[in-house]
Amino acid sequence: MKKIFEKEKLVKKSEDFAKWYQDVILQSGLADYAPVKGCMVFKPQGFAIWENIQKVLDQKFKEKGVKNAYFPLFIPEKFLKREKEHIEGFSPELAVVTIGGGEELKEKLVVRPTSETIIYEMFSKWIKSWRDLPLMLNQWCNVVRWEMRPRLFLRTTEFLWQEGHTVHGTQEENLEMVNWALENYVNVYRDFFAIDGIWGKKSEREKFPGARTTYTFEMLMPDGKALQGCTSHNLGQNFAKVFNLKFLDKDGKEKIPWQTCWGLSTRSIGALIMVHGDDQGLILPPKLAPAQIVIIPIFQGKEDDKNLIKKAEEIKKSLDSFRVEIDLREGHSVGWKFNEWELRGVPLRLELGQKELKEKKATLVRRDTGEKSLAPFSSLAKEVKEALDLIQKNLFLKSSRFMKENTREVSDYDAFKLIMKKEKGFIRAFWCENPDCEAKLKEETKATVRALPFDAEEEKGKCIYCQEPAEKKWVFAQTY
Amino acid sequence: MKKIFEKEKLVKKSEDFAKWYQDVILQSGLADYAPVKGCMVFKPQGFAIWENIQKVLDQKFKEKGVKNAYFPLFIPEKFLKREKEHIEGFSPELAVVTIGGGEELKEKLVVRPTSETIIYEMFSKWIKSWRDLPLMLNQWCNVVRWEMRPRLFLRTTEFLWQEGHTVHGTQEENLEMVNWALENYVNVYRDFFAIDGIWGKKSEREKFPGARTTYTFEMLMPDGKALQGCTSHNLGQNFAKVFNLKFLDKDGKEKIPWQTCWGLSTRSIGALIMVHGDDQGLILPPKLAPAQIVIIPIFQGKEDDKNLIKKAEEIKKSLDSFRVEIDLREGHSVGWKFNEWELRGVPLRLELGQKELKEKKATLVRRDTGEKSLAPFSSLAKEVKEALDLIQKNLFLKSSRFMKENTREVSDYDAFKLIMKKEKGFIRAFWCENPDCEAKLKEETKATVRALPFDAEEEKGKCIYCQEPAEKKWVFAQTY
Repeated sequence: MKKIFEKEKLVKKSEDFAKWYQDVILQSGLADYAPVKGCMVFKPQGFAIWENIQKVLDQKFKEKGVKNAYFPLFIPEKFLKREKEHIEGFSPELAVVTIGGGEELKEKLVVRPTSETIIYEMFSKWIKSWRDLPLMLNQWCNVVRWEMRPRLFLRTTEFLWQEGHTVHGTQEENLEMVNWALENYVNVYRDFFAIDGIWGKKSEREKFPGARTTYTFEMLMPDGKALQGCTSHNLGQNFAKVFNLKFLDKDGKEKIPWQTCWGLSTRSIGALIMVHGDDQGLILPPKLAPAQIVIIPIFQGKEDDKNLIKKAEEIKKSLDSFRVEIDLREGHSVGWKFNEWELRGVPLRLELGQKELKEKKATLVRRDTGEKSLAPFSSLAKEVKEALDLIQKNLFLKSSRFMKENTREVSDYDAFKLIMKKEKGFIRAFWCENPDCEAKLKEETKATVRALPFDAEEEKGKCIYCQEPAEKKWVFAQTY
Repeated sequence: MKKIFEKEKLVKKSEDFAKWYQDVILQSGLADYAPVKGCMVFKPQGFAIWENIQKVLDQKFKEKGVKNAYFPLFIPEKFLKREKEHIEGFSPELAVVTIGGGEELKEKLVVRPTSETIIYEMFSKWIKSWRDLPLMLNQWCNVVRWEMRPRLFLRTTEFLWQEGHTVHGTQEENLEMVNWALENYVNVYRDFFAIDGIWGKKSEREKFPGARTTYTFEMLMPDGKALQGCTSHNLGQNFAKVFNLKFLDKDGKEKIPWQTCWGLSTRSIGALIMVHGDDQGLILPPKLAPAQIVIIPIFQGKEDDKNLIKKAEEIKKSLDSFRVEIDLREGHSVGWKFNEWELRGVPLRLELGQKELKEKKATLVRRDTGEKSLAPFSSLAKEVKEALDLIQKNLFLKSSRFMKENTREVSDYDAFKLIMKKEKGFIRAFWCENPDCEAKLKEETKATVRALPFDAEEEKGKCIYCQEPAEKKWVFAQTY
């Protein structure tokens, strides 16, 4: 709160994007640095956004029949080692407990970086017959991946996420699930986060360690870099074989089941901040904003102020299907309050002064456009709903437009290099799918293969890097 | 599921309580042992109970103005050492990370056993003036306390809980908060868990390491041992001084604030299982049961079965304000299904056969009493609500009666010893408040001081142990 009081001026988003990002988080009270290397603290404002994300996803998981469970934080090191790619992928990032209850442990325990190994060890005990399938579980938890260059929300040693893990009797059902999981994320990003992006398959090099195929939703940040929003993995039978998962099918035969896993983390809040915010601070999409409307009575220090307070509370009550706050704090100017709620990104401001009281209308101010309008008290709920819907839509359209304007088809490698040096953004280009080209391209341009979009057509072309024949245009970008 | 299929017979609760407790958890699918020493897995049935507990508490916290936040899992060892009693209390139970990102850490990190130290370090940065108070935060998280003799839900190395932490400008406000927190827990235990208990103050020896006073809700388990249901701590200014919390008050003076903290954990589910269950399995109070009603169509393998399914689904829809499951599984006898849902503790069974269809009435069977009744389809929602209310009440009254019947006033130490050897239960007895008597009494009878009940009157008596003058009757019991 001190910070806000002595309000530091926020640096312009266009002038110093990295500093803007950090400062807008600290000043708006979303989060703070923790006194533990690489870790962060979620302050109530920031955590409330995560709670709203949780609510949306949790409901969708449950509608699909996925149930919540909880597996241990600690994983015996030997479990992780069972799947070779998996341990190689994660071992540089592990936090390891070596002392427990005052004694050196005989077997070291890894703090989960992800939970496949411990969960599938349990699945191998639980699954016996086709009657036990599909098994569809999810857990909301903290995970730890050691981070040397932390950034609030985007890269922290500990973060929060959900990880879904499903087991199916047939490959078809498994594919349906892995697609459902991705589609669900895509819908949530577009409809709730109001962020557009591209979705598709990862390259072999970029896929999850141990997965058969990884699917992703990639969003474009204002600095032209991509952010991976989630992943949905088709694990095939790979982990099932390693963890000895088997089931007796209806035909009396013992079979190996198929698996998926998929996750979305608090990293997503980083995208939300970057994509929508402006020089005044955060802009939160109404569907995820902790407060959707702030009512600010315009006090004049007179007896009349009481009427304003009474009316403000009346209005709040009449808007009970929305998340509403009233700012009754004394000792702050109206201008100061306007600035503070803009910094915090509340989508809609409702101003209430003596003029409004007399005219029986409230002044509504949109955070995204600054547009003002007068709404009669008698139809406030309707007008507020319309305004919030418009804001939600407008934010998405802006994000969508930005992505389109910054997605370029390129066939010439020099042009590719130049774009990655200057404006960045997404590049759609032919790639021969040779990992060597991918590696060299990354070395020379810092861009990685983000995804093969689902809508990529079969074409004939030449690899952007080696000029060998290629069949599909992949999406490239520098990345967070 | 395999377990249920080859249904092992559940041992009788009265014959082998400890084995019954373990087996009912495993067989009903609440939880499983994890392949990590001291840890457990929350299966969907068990986790759903925790979700219901979370929903209730979270709403009550928010109504009080407490906001959710999230602080790091890892705490630098030096933080814990700042408060002497605190580190002494927790150090035998700590799990310590010594390796991070492949390297030996210079500063060891403790996996949080509780979060006072890391949270108050942050509070000291955030709190500057009276305007920042009260600061009332809560976090839902996992904590780790190394456990040598684990028992599912009751004692596990990792468990889930909420921890509330509040800071106030005055001692009065602080006391109000610490009382509110306890009262809230008491109400939730009584109204939702349907478990009665006694509430009051802990002895000096039993209080939280670093607290000024600890308050508790103590419940009596069927084997006559007590279980501590939660704690609410008045921290006074103790941690505030250690962590350098200060605020500028309205009068312009710098002051030290007052603090509380309070928590309730997944241990509470252990109480729920023990208190209500019977020889057939779990009995879940309707307000916390994942499924409140199970509809079992009684199939006869004929074309008519289709009508039953249709009606069952119609009924489910008409009961949409309840949590309802329909058991349509084939290949199981009706008797088998009845047993299985009894094992799982679903409060109300709705049987639907051709007879019911004809008479336009459903058969309702209460899990707690086995009582059957016929409820007309036309007033099903009303009848179901009444039945669930009755079950909820009955379970509470049973628990309350059990506690009363097993709470004894004792003034003679030999009688005390005999009771603690045989029937156990709560004993109300005078105690001089000398820790030596408390220690010796524990050594000789395994009973500890559970609480000074809030309703304890000022009386004149003699200490049950040393016969010195004593003023209040405390409650003693052996404990989990």
